Amino acid sequence: MSLIVMKFGGTSVANEERIRKVADRLIEHKKAGDQVIAVVSAMGKSTDDFVNLAHNINPDPPRREMDVLMSAGEQISMAILAMAVEAKGYKAMSFTGSQAGIVTDVEYSKAKIREIKADRIFYALNKGYIVIVAGFQGVTKSGDITTLGRGGSDTTAVAVAAATGADLCEIYTDVEGVYTADPRICPRAKRLDVINYEDMLELSDSGSGVLQSRSVEFARNFGVVIHCRSAFSDKPGTLVKEVSDMESAVITGIAYDNSEAKVTLRDVPDRPGIAAQLFASVASVGANVDMIVQNVSENGMTDMSFTTPLKDLPLVKDLLDKLVADLGARSYLIDKSISKISIVGAGMKTNPGIAAKMFSVLAENGINITLISTSSIRLSVVIDGSLTEKAVQCLHTAFGLDSDTVFEETQLSSEELAAKAKKGR
Amino acid sequence: MSLIVMKFGGTSVANEERIRKVADRLIEHKKAGDQVIAVVSAMGKSTDDFVNLAHNINPDPPRREMDVLMSAGEQISMAILAMAVEAKGYKAMSFTGSQAGIVTDVEYSKAKIREIKADRIFYALNKGYIVIVAGFQGVTKSGDITTLGRGGSDTTAVAVAAATGADLCEIYTDVEGVYTADPRICPRAKRLDVINYEDMLELSDSGSGVLQSRSVEFARNFGVVIHCRSAFSDKPGTLVKEVSDMESAVITGIAYDNSEAKVTLRDVPDRPGIAAQLFASVASVGANVDMIVQNVSENGMTDMSFTTPLKDLPLVKDLLDKLVADLGARSYLIDKSISKISIVGAGMKTNPGIAAKMFSVLAENGINITLISTSSIRLSVVIDGSLTEKAVQCLHTAFGLDSDTVFEETQLSSEELAAKAKKGR
Repeated sequence: MSLIVMKFGGTSVANEERIRKVADRLIEHKKAGDQVIAVVSAMGKSTDDFVNLAHNINPDPPRREMDVLMSAGEQISMAILAMAVEAKGYKAMSFTGSQAGIVTDVEYSKAKIREIKADRIFYALNKGYIVIVAGFQGVTKSGDITTLGRGGSDTTAVAVAAATGADLCEIYTDVEGVYTADPRICPRAKRLDVINYEDMLELSDSGSGVLQSRSVEFARNFGVVIHCRSAFSDKPGTLVKEVSDMESAVITGIAYDNSEAKVTLRDVPDRPGIAAQLFASVASVGANVDMIVQNVSENGMTDMSFTTPLKDLPLVKDLLDKLVADLGARSYLIDKSISKISIVGAGMKTNPGIAAKMFSVLAENGINITLISTSSIRLSVVIDGSLTEKAVQCLHTAFGLDSDTVFEETQLSSEELAAKAKKGR
Repeated sequence: MSLIVMKFGGTSVANEERIRKVADRLIEHKKAGDQVIAVVSAMGKSTDDFVNLAHNINPDPPRREMDVLMSAGEQISMAILAMAVEAKGYKAMSFTGSQAGIVTDVEYSKAKIREIKADRIFYALNKGYIVIVAGFQGVTKSGDITTLGRGGSDTTAVAVAAATGADLCEIYTDVEGVYTADPRICPRAKRLDVINYEDMLELSDSGSGVLQSRSVEFARNFGVVIHCRSAFSDKPGTLVKEVSDMESAVITGIAYDNSEAKVTLRDVPDRPGIAAQLFASVASVGANVDMIVQNVSENGMTDMSFTTPLKDLPLVKDLLDKLVADLGARSYLIDKSISKISIVGAGMKTNPGIAAKMFSVLAENGINITLISTSSIRLSVVIDGSLTEKAVQCLHTAFGLDSDTVFEETQLSSEELAAKAKKGR
């Protein structure tokens, strides 16, 4: 008998028919003798409906109340799923984040899980119930409802798996697993049977939207094995786990990210503390900074570039005129049409020359690099956004990742494509 | 400084505009220096939507999960109302039944409040927040979500008022208060400025839909003063409270109830225990019985009649053939077109002859009585349903209740009328 956690996102429970299918999946495992915990997101577009309702009433809704509102979404889907399971003759019991003992800090809308008191979950499992837990939500020590923010349901699933010592955490999604590259722009991409936590983390951080890096980090820290698979088929997906003894592929996958803009400050006087001043200002308006590059100083002047999410750009823009004046810079440039291309692989550590190969492949294909950043198992470059597809494809081929078969767009439904496109934003 | 509880039903929070108006009302009291607790129902038709969703998935949804689902409705409306208050520059904090410490028994869908642990409410009040509590819901000792069933939000409001020692419990509804009779069928009905608990209880029990008898009983037991008033105007409504020293009106009001059917068993052998057998059978199928009448025995045979809610009639019907056989009765009759007319008034106790007057007024108007039942402050008769209006009007006149002015239907919006019509079902 195994204990298995199964997580279903909003598209997997978007309507009655799909909820019944999810119920079938849970029952299948239960029949096989497993103990089953499902973690569910809110149904389809209900989250959007709530956001609209809230913003019509209050353009700047208080965050505590926003979390109260949003958490009603999973409360609905979990109850309906429990009813669907019972309709098929099996016992089910649903739990809100609070009822499931998911204790978080008090950072409304982006709370972090501190602890899971899983005794009610165990009680229900031992009584033979299929347990259904609301994803994305928790409760503070003093009893206030919180939500976990983006990717929160994945994190709930992994955290519940960790707290209950589950044998496996299945994350059902709208793609068939983790690919060597996004098959929509790289038709020769291959699905990976297995990937280690580090590579998965770097891919997630670099724009691969399959799993949120937060949940992968949680899984790594607690040794939870994730099975990332399609909610719409029975095919096996990708296992995310510690793979210490495998002969590491040099490059595991290629990710891209179109969601950032590049800001450059020209001719900044190069004196100590200037970078600190710049990024303290950017941080003070709540904008995130991803890559940071400072050119070699020339005549005491330097160019400083950084990338920031497009959604944070308005915050940064308000700041730039003042920054140029304060720092004594000449001017600033904003480039909204950039793409960050990342190659990821644990084998990179022991294979020198990967960077040189990446740069030369891009050069041979006439693709100019404007920023570079690295970690021990990742190389990222910023290029012109219009060349994204070309860059991913030529790197995919050059690093020997091409599949013999060609992925066809028709494998994705229009709904899945729309969901993916949205996720990519 | 007073502490005031204000309860708003589903129609009062049905859309954004109305929610803003409710927020204004709360803020008005807050500005006047009062401490304010709002109790809210789910928005408009959201409850119906949930019921449909559930029944599509499971024709017989498990009651625990049904309560989980239903309670999401108030969670949404309370968060939105809190946002509306904050949008107007005042602090608000919402609480689910569980967060508000409303502890109930485990009777899902019709739970009874056992205790209110109001410390979180007091904490928020003392911090200057307008407190918003979800009506209709609570939590069991072991943390399961429950709902209170019909009229539950009124009961929540009164119970919260009792637990916090509130000075007043305002119940906002779609009519302007308690009338001597339903103004839609009795245009000379008067709004009462004040009514005592006993009379209000009898009126509620007899079909007046303004307040649920359950909440009135709670108010009487804990001495909570209710102000029943319109959500759509600023006019004062009706105070429900202990009126020990007032010169009681002989008759306070007249109620009618069209929601029952009459069942008669003909020629039942009259032996001890037969009534017990009959009503044990009816109770065993979960049907409610209101009035019970047994005719004088003749030749060892008697007729037994009882009334039961129309909605319970299918349960009773399945039983009748067997009952006739078991009891050795001759046959049964069902009359679905009956109306129960009740006159209510604490003054009845000290004024003999009220019954005689009621019967003779009805007789003079050609209205036949088929069943009679009484309490110390109520007289109810069952008549032909088509004569309801005539009966209420002639009794209203005969007992001196007629107003000088005539109530016009136009005082009610079509929406309110629809809501009232629905409530009456």
